[in-house]
Amino acid sequence: MARPITFLSDYGHADEFVGVVHAVIARLAPGSRIIDISHGVPRHAVLAGALALERALPYAAPGVHLAVVDPEVGARRRAIALRTEKEDRLLVGPDNGLLLPAAGRFGGVAEVVDIGSSPWRLEPVSATFHGRDVFAPVAARLASGEALADAGPPLDPADLVALDRTSARVEPDGSLTARAVAVDTFGNVQLDVAHEQLARTALRLGHPVRIDLGGRSVGGQFARSFADVAPGEILVYEDASRMLAVAVNTGDAAEDLLLRPGDELRILPA
Amino acid sequence: MARPITFLSDYGHADEFVGVVHAVIARLAPGSRIIDISHGVPRHAVLAGALALERALPYAAPGVHLAVVDPEVGARRRAIALRTEKEDRLLVGPDNGLLLPAAGRFGGVAEVVDIGSSPWRLEPVSATFHGRDVFAPVAARLASGEALADAGPPLDPADLVALDRTSARVEPDGSLTARAVAVDTFGNVQLDVAHEQLARTALRLGHPVRIDLGGRSVGGQFARSFADVAPGEILVYEDASRMLAVAVNTGDAAEDLLLRPGDELRILPA
Amino acid sequence: MARPITFLSDYGHADEFVGVVHAVIARLAPGSRIIDISHGVPRHAVLAGALALERALPYAAPGVHLAVVDPEVGARRRAIALRTEKEDRLLVGPDNGLLLPAAGRFGGVAEVVDIGSSPWRLEPVSATFHGRDVFAPVAARLASGEALADAGPPLDPADLVALDRTSARVEPDGSLTARAVAVDTFGNVQLDVAHEQLARTALRLGHPVRIDLGGRSVGGQFARSFADVAPGEILVYEDASRMLAVAVNTGDAAEDLLLRPGDELRILPA
Repeated sequence: MARPITFLSDYGHADEFVGVVHAVIARLAPGSRIIDISHGVPRHAVLAGALALERALPYAAPGVHLAVVDPEVGARRRAIALRTEKEDRLLVGPDNGLLLPAAGRFGGVAEVVDIGSSPWRLEPVSATFHGRDVFAPVAARLASGEALADAGPPLDPADLVALDRTSARVEPDGSLTARAVAVDTFGNVQLDVAHEQLARTALRLGHPVRIDLGGRSVGGQFARSFADVAPGEILVYEDASRMLAVAVNTGDAAEDLLLRPGDELRILPA
Repeated sequence: MARPITFLSDYGHADEFVGVVHAVIARLAPGSRIIDISHGVPRHAVLAGALALERALPYAAPGVHLAVVDPEVGARRRAIALRTEKEDRLLVGPDNGLLLPAAGRFGGVAEVVDIGSSPWRLEPVSATFHGRDVFAPVAARLASGEALADAGPPLDPADLVALDRTSARVEPDGSLTARAVAVDTFGNVQLDVAHEQLARTALRLGHPVRIDLGGRSVGGQFARSFADVAPGEILVYEDASRMLAVAVNTGDAAEDLLLRPGDELRILPA
Repeated sequence: MARPITFLSDYGHADEFVGVVHAVIARLAPGSRIIDISHGVPRHAVLAGALALERALPYAAPGVHLAVVDPEVGARRRAIALRTEKEDRLLVGPDNGLLLPAAGRFGGVAEVVDIGSSPWRLEPVSATFHGRDVFAPVAARLASGEALADAGPPLDPADLVALDRTSARVEPDGSLTARAVAVDTFGNVQLDVAHEQLARTALRLGHPVRIDLGGRSVGGQFARSFADVAPGEILVYEDASRMLAVAVNTGDAAEDLLLRPGDELRILPA
């Protein structure tokens, strides 16, 4: 029985790249459903792709999870397929950190193989489109029930490339020193502040906050949702991934506050 | 036997929102096909989304029809699921008018329930992503054959929120006073003039027309299709939805004529 | 047994056009899988669409291949469905050259019919949306196993409209006179230089090249992949379609070198 495949990439929708990957998979695994998580990851933005994958996979049925954000395609980076400790999910993609945050949601990596020279590759393998020639056929064969161990030689999970990720600091005064990690299409800015950290801050739901942005300072509210503040007003809120985020009701926080991934900011009761 | 699901939203393709909704549905209703109607509805544009849904559904097989353009998510607007009088279609989305024009194509609302606290919701329900936490699971369960009455408590169809819609006026002299209602990706401007109204005007196919745009006036032709006029020339024509529309052959009428949804214009024989 | 359908168009993702075509097909051929090759072909760019189709189809399972880039919809151009000599693929679209390069990959056209007045059309046929009213129902019926000969009256394959395509010249000194034919979303510029021509040039992998662009001249490397040159440097390389292409590592060659489809350039050893 064919397993479903999810697919995330930075290929965009202007070209036929996504369609060709679908075509390769459909040919090798005609019974597998393919669910596109997103192909709008900014080009080569491995961290943004990793975070989107981590947010999405807990909502997807266990299966094969293909992800391709691969700035070093054709260079020496490894191509991998891994099995998670929990739920037996199979993740396929480049060894550049893209897969590990999502794998961490399922207990981490139980088994991983190097698929760069997989016997399942399409020949001739191009230097630039491993999504089509390496990752898609491996994902399709795994979805069809073939064994991970047959996809390539084993690797040590400890040798995989990991991403640098930041985590906010709760200061002694109850304020937060945080970083912007992602911006969605509406300009909402996700911070590196997890649900568990929030309880340890001095921020109180429904109360005003101040946001210091290195020299500039703006006022807002710690709200439950957009509609709790007036149009054009700033809010910080726990977003749908249970991370703290900054938004402007009916506006674009990234643009209005000039916030980009990596920027540091401080949030404190006003 | 699982019913097909159509899905329209303003989520765009930059983020994983659409993919996560697909994932939730595929997990709960693995046998249901999902057809994406469009996710390019302009952000928060409830009327534009309602019109696209109304244009599309007559071409889709009866099933579950999920639509999410939801500027008031997290506020007091209701979430609903309804059954149409004809064809037993099930429409799921916010109670902000989005669903009603499409429902009207199938005899209107026969039955409607409030799904804001549906037992089928994913817990914890986020304040901002009801597409994932409320609408998708309800759509999936309905597609799997569960009963509408089990999705939530009944509402009175007369209590649903409706949109303000305009309709063109045929003047005594046979001219039309109309409004722009939608602009497609090619800049073609759909007006609020239905097929049935056209016969009562003084406009004749193949003849020149004048378009008055509040102070400005341009000439064009009432044509069957783009190719009937020279490149760069203006035409009014009955579009694929059998509504009157304004276009520029190989051009962008919205841009060239500075036309936006809501703008009033007058069309008369030249 | 339903055959799979691939679908390419210039409809974009802003409107419901792609979704409505899916809906029509799903209704008529509920057992057929639809694979979207791309809907990001630039508006009315028949050659760009033809090349994307040609690149993609060899990776897709044989089936029905629907393609709509149709600037002359509603005018006198014919609508066709054809069967290829090899693999019995069925291609459906306008008779403007869009389908022929892809058909050429499978031995050319064995049989072709005029579907402009096909008995399978949806009535009333609009003047502007033949994707919905003509092409989709024909593709769906063919995928369901109905006979090509029943879709419309036969045409002579020799009468089909073909595109003007260029092919690079290998000069006596081993340099190349080529044209840009396509630009992908990353700004990589595909040239009209095929794998077979490369061996006859004086270009050597890993060696520097000079690119003359009518007055301007830039240096680069003939490389295997992006990662073989430093960020910001220019490379020419055999792309994933085995055509020569120009790129800038981590950059946008079309923008940096002001290259557009149709532009001529000369490439020679430096």
